[in-house]
Amino acid sequence: MAEVDVVIMAAGKGTRMKSKLPKVLHSLAGRALLAHVVDTASALQPRNVVVITGHGATEVEAALAGYISASALFSLNFARQEPQLGTGHAVQQALPYLADDGVVIVLSGDVPLTRADTLRQLLAVGGGDKLALLTLELPDPSGYGRIVREGDAVQAIVEHKDASEAQRAIREIYSGIMAVPAARLRTWLGRLDNRNAQSEYYLTDIVKMAVADGVPVVAHKITDELQVAGVNSPVQLAELERAYQRQQALALMEQGVRLADPARLDVRGSLECAQDVSIDVNCVFEGTVVLGEGVRIGANCVIANARLAAGVVVHPFTHIDGEKAGVTVGAGSLIGPFARLRPGAQLGDEVHIGNFVEVKNSTMGDGAKANHLAYLGDATVGARVNFGAGSITANYDGANKHRTVIGDDVHVGSNCVLVAPITLGAGGTVGGGSTLTKDTPAGALSVARGRQVAIANWSRPKKAKP
Amino acid sequence: MAEVDVVIMAAGKGTRMKSKLPKVLHSLAGRALLAHVVDTASALQPRNVVVITGHGATEVEAALAGYISASALFSLNFARQEPQLGTGHAVQQALPYLADDGVVIVLSGDVPLTRADTLRQLLAVGGGDKLALLTLELPDPSGYGRIVREGDAVQAIVEHKDASEAQRAIREIYSGIMAVPAARLRTWLGRLDNRNAQSEYYLTDIVKMAVADGVPVVAHKITDELQVAGVNSPVQLAELERAYQRQQALALMEQGVRLADPARLDVRGSLECAQDVSIDVNCVFEGTVVLGEGVRIGANCVIANARLAAGVVVHPFTHIDGEKAGVTVGAGSLIGPFARLRPGAQLGDEVHIGNFVEVKNSTMGDGAKANHLAYLGDATVGARVNFGAGSITANYDGANKHRTVIGDDVHVGSNCVLVAPITLGAGGTVGGGSTLTKDTPAGALSVARGRQVAIANWSRPKKAKP
Amino acid sequence: MAEVDVVIMAAGKGTRMKSKLPKVLHSLAGRALLAHVVDTASALQPRNVVVITGHGATEVEAALAGYISASALFSLNFARQEPQLGTGHAVQQALPYLADDGVVIVLSGDVPLTRADTLRQLLAVGGGDKLALLTLELPDPSGYGRIVREGDAVQAIVEHKDASEAQRAIREIYSGIMAVPAARLRTWLGRLDNRNAQSEYYLTDIVKMAVADGVPVVAHKITDELQVAGVNSPVQLAELERAYQRQQALALMEQGVRLADPARLDVRGSLECAQDVSIDVNCVFEGTVVLGEGVRIGANCVIANARLAAGVVVHPFTHIDGEKAGVTVGAGSLIGPFARLRPGAQLGDEVHIGNFVEVKNSTMGDGAKANHLAYLGDATVGARVNFGAGSITANYDGANKHRTVIGDDVHVGSNCVLVAPITLGAGGTVGGGSTLTKDTPAGALSVARGRQVAIANWSRPKKAKP
Repeated sequence: MAEVDVVIMAAGKGTRMKSKLPKVLHSLAGRALLAHVVDTASALQPRNVVVITGHGATEVEAALAGYISASALFSLNFARQEPQLGTGHAVQQALPYLADDGVVIVLSGDVPLTRADTLRQLLAVGGGDKLALLTLELPDPSGYGRIVREGDAVQAIVEHKDASEAQRAIREIYSGIMAVPAARLRTWLGRLDNRNAQSEYYLTDIVKMAVADGVPVVAHKITDELQVAGVNSPVQLAELERAYQRQQALALMEQGVRLADPARLDVRGSLECAQDVSIDVNCVFEGTVVLGEGVRIGANCVIANARLAAGVVVHPFTHIDGEKAGVTVGAGSLIGPFARLRPGAQLGDEVHIGNFVEVKNSTMGDGAKANHLAYLGDATVGARVNFGAGSITANYDGANKHRTVIGDDVHVGSNCVLVAPITLGAGGTVGGGSTLTKDTPAGALSVARGRQVAIANWSRPKKAKP
Repeated sequence: MAEVDVVIMAAGKGTRMKSKLPKVLHSLAGRALLAHVVDTASALQPRNVVVITGHGATEVEAALAGYISASALFSLNFARQEPQLGTGHAVQQALPYLADDGVVIVLSGDVPLTRADTLRQLLAVGGGDKLALLTLELPDPSGYGRIVREGDAVQAIVEHKDASEAQRAIREIYSGIMAVPAARLRTWLGRLDNRNAQSEYYLTDIVKMAVADGVPVVAHKITDELQVAGVNSPVQLAELERAYQRQQALALMEQGVRLADPARLDVRGSLECAQDVSIDVNCVFEGTVVLGEGVRIGANCVIANARLAAGVVVHPFTHIDGEKAGVTVGAGSLIGPFARLRPGAQLGDEVHIGNFVEVKNSTMGDGAKANHLAYLGDATVGARVNFGAGSITANYDGANKHRTVIGDDVHVGSNCVLVAPITLGAGGTVGGGSTLTKDTPAGALSVARGRQVAIANWSRPKKAKP
Repeated sequence: MAEVDVVIMAAGKGTRMKSKLPKVLHSLAGRALLAHVVDTASALQPRNVVVITGHGATEVEAALAGYISASALFSLNFARQEPQLGTGHAVQQALPYLADDGVVIVLSGDVPLTRADTLRQLLAVGGGDKLALLTLELPDPSGYGRIVREGDAVQAIVEHKDASEAQRAIREIYSGIMAVPAARLRTWLGRLDNRNAQSEYYLTDIVKMAVADGVPVVAHKITDELQVAGVNSPVQLAELERAYQRQQALALMEQGVRLADPARLDVRGSLECAQDVSIDVNCVFEGTVVLGEGVRIGANCVIANARLAAGVVVHPFTHIDGEKAGVTVGAGSLIGPFARLRPGAQLGDEVHIGNFVEVKNSTMGDGAKANHLAYLGDATVGARVNFGAGSITANYDGANKHRTVIGDDVHVGSNCVLVAPITLGAGGTVGGGSTLTKDTPAGALSVARGRQVAIANWSRPKKAKP
């Protein structure tokens, strides 16, 4: 097969989005629309990807740099289209980046859910030398351009308003996506004119040129409307979001994941599940999340960028976000309810993190527990440590962060403050209510608290008169 | 145009609601059904609103007083209907409040979603001298009273059971809402009788009187069933609630608000959004909420009576309720997850409120932070203050509330207690674990804690034998 | 009527579930599919219930023991089917447990939603001497075995692929459920053969034997597909879950419960509601929950095994799980938001439990309050006690749990630690920041804290150079 080059139209303003953000940067399932399209394009192993920018070009180009991984094998180019004189004019801007020996696929930056397989089939149908259109069979095609065929060969795309009664009965429409030999494209684009009602250069005009030049025009017809649905408004964006989430929920269930309510699941990124994972209602997954065998996620959890080993149970109202550093939770651990794991939380096996507990940038050894109302930040916590209710690692002195090291088997009482940098020797005990500023010896009981006194017959404050 | 007077039927029991609460006081989108109807009525700038009460009259009348703002320009009257002898009998009770020079609109207190524009059109169609019926075109009109016309003129409302085959093919039905000249209404109501199967006085009987008297009967026909849908059961109430919420979600999206799932949004009151606001799944808004440009609301938030300035990010599981005092959050602030802002929380710009933090009746200066496990009540917190994890303003002595004042740039350590009334001087530091009962000097380090001691070779408690 | 014996098919592997768990142990609404079927069977007051096990037999049999209450009046038997040679072969394994004087109902362990009433009607139609089939009328019966009748009498079940054009027009299909006289069943099962494409012994082959023997074959036809829907995949399980939840939501609303969104309610167990209960969006109920008159449940609550008395208000994000010990909340109490009640929490009337508060195995007297950031475990809390923000009962010494007893009217300040075992005398006050290890006298002010000192001109830590 010929080399593939991809042109992505991303110059439009998207007025109906009513947003300052360029339309193609709006998010579907946590990624910009354009990022979805670039992902799909890259699955075709293209030689070049040319993104046509216009409205918000600087912002789009900057954002796109963030989507492309360093390991991408294709060359990414931007071609600015200013002013915007139609779809044909847009593709004209890409010509400098398109070698004549390739086949060009034209995609839209606001059509996020096309499958790479569909495009591969389109390329196969085009065979490298034909003009291949991706078409869609619709129950109600009113308003769309119809595909007029003679036998199998496509003769024209006829706009609805120009169509005859017989043509209006055609239910096959043009999707906006095509594959075209680069050399032919160059020739035809050079012959485009804008003598039409809107004074624009239409890419679809090349169909008639192909027919005139005797180049076969073929169509790859699909019926899945979602693959070619574009986003022009927040309503359409929300519809596509829900459709995409339904697809993902279905795919997870087909792998064996049990979902309490497929309509109340949001996966924004990649969710990898081993066998016998169950997910309760109303959970959100973001970034890269990996769930081991038998993991159970309770209702109303938000989990991002985390790896949970086999048998982990996450109770309701748990918030995990590993951001870049990630979060790892060892096998058999119990997390939540009302727990928060933040970047760099690395929990061993059988760790318990209970309600109103926050863990950040800390490791916890196997069997360690922080069950109630606690903050662990910048801490190295040994195995089997019990970190008491209300206890805090004071890691921040107002200027710098310091580390707390807690040896194995330490028992920290309630409402303690460990003022970092500090090291608690293994096997020690910290009395409840202690604020520790110095290291503690192994095996010792460390206490820092005031003496208890009672003042008898104390007279309580009285309610002030208003 | 003639003056408008409104009669609202609110005497029914609503047996199918199976509730002690009178039916018209049940809530849709956070407001009583009757309050929605009164809102709509008031948009017509009526002279009088007469509410017909019966079942639960005292409760209905008391509740209604709460809905009417002091600035309402109309006169509100109650007319009790006891016993309840039909719709015509109900309107008869309103006659003492209806001057003959007006036009009377008859509404139902359990039909909450009629649009004021629809009623204005009904008034216009009636022209002040005709009997104007609001009618509805239904795909399946079975069971409803049909509108029989000759040409455009309405001849009768024929009940389904009395209708001929031809009449049953009519899909236009009567909605229960009409506009009628007051003088005519008075005459016709005087001629009503109850010689029918249910021995009731039917308001709809005035249609035939109008025809007999040569008064034109006209119809304003709509197709939006929701506008005339009544509530008779919890199932119908829930259906209407969801339909209303869908309408609101759609309206927000059309303004440019991005909703992760329009089916999982509840707005009970007024939600005003600037440009580029996004709202994640499963959020609830109550009372009056104003969101500035670019505000992002995370999943599973409940927000009531609050104003959030531009760029505020609210993380998941945040609960904000300003009640009467309100909550304000300054530009660029970060709130949550698991944060709670209560009445009188007034946060400056770039304030951070983190997990398991409660703020009540407190101001916080620009850049102040309370990131973990803290309670701020009745406090005045300066700019750039860092309020440590686990720290508490002890504002309540068991009888009275006292104020805590924290100067700019104070750094409060972890697990501190500030016993109010107390003032911390600007730029000071409070050592972790301190309980302060006296004011602190500016710039000083203030500490109140026990000395740390270690008891070596301490023998831990052993597990008791059962 | 004859005695009833029930045979439940539970030997299948459920490959499409893609799970290690035997299919019949997968949960619908919090209970195993098989447990639902056993519940339905037990409602028939059967003499014997015979469960045919095979794949995962040990696990299924062990689990089933857990479902059967000690008071069950029927005898439970397991019959292993190894290898699995068809439905007829499965029922053959049950024969040793089936006396000839009974009627046998054959159920499937993966068809959870059959109503007992439907089975009673099936038994009535069978009359104790006929072969009675439960059949279903479907809009689109393609693929299913059709019920061929002459007049009312059933002549045969004809598989779709063997059906004539006329037979394919039949919309009545066999559900997989039958009632059959035991003596007849024994005879017919003895005559089964496996001379068919799959070399299996088909239970349905007894229909033709009945016809041949002159035993009337009758059908009880239903139209509710849900009652005979089986679970073969996670997708079907989720569909059935949602259908079941819709049924429950509808039933609750018909009793008068107000649901903000019937599509966002999950009841897994039994939810009993008095009059005027309202439940906001996205709540989950598990186990046995009883809600008194006028109880209001806020958005996003998870409530299990709890009894809430009249007038209790539960604010959003509340997690209650009584597990086996249960949770009780007295009349007029306010719980949440962000509260957690655990097993053995027994709250009196007018108790307030606020945000970030956990209560476990503790009683609280009338009017007691713990409004912020607190942990109450193994405590006996008197009436009108105010338990301060950040305060903790230190109930665990690392080896044993101890009890905290707080007398009536005690006021515990903020960030206190009560080291159990400890008793606070009635009417006493505990100064904020105190860690108490000894009992306190009634009426006294007890304090244990360090002296407050200020170190002037203290130089703050500076940001370290990287």
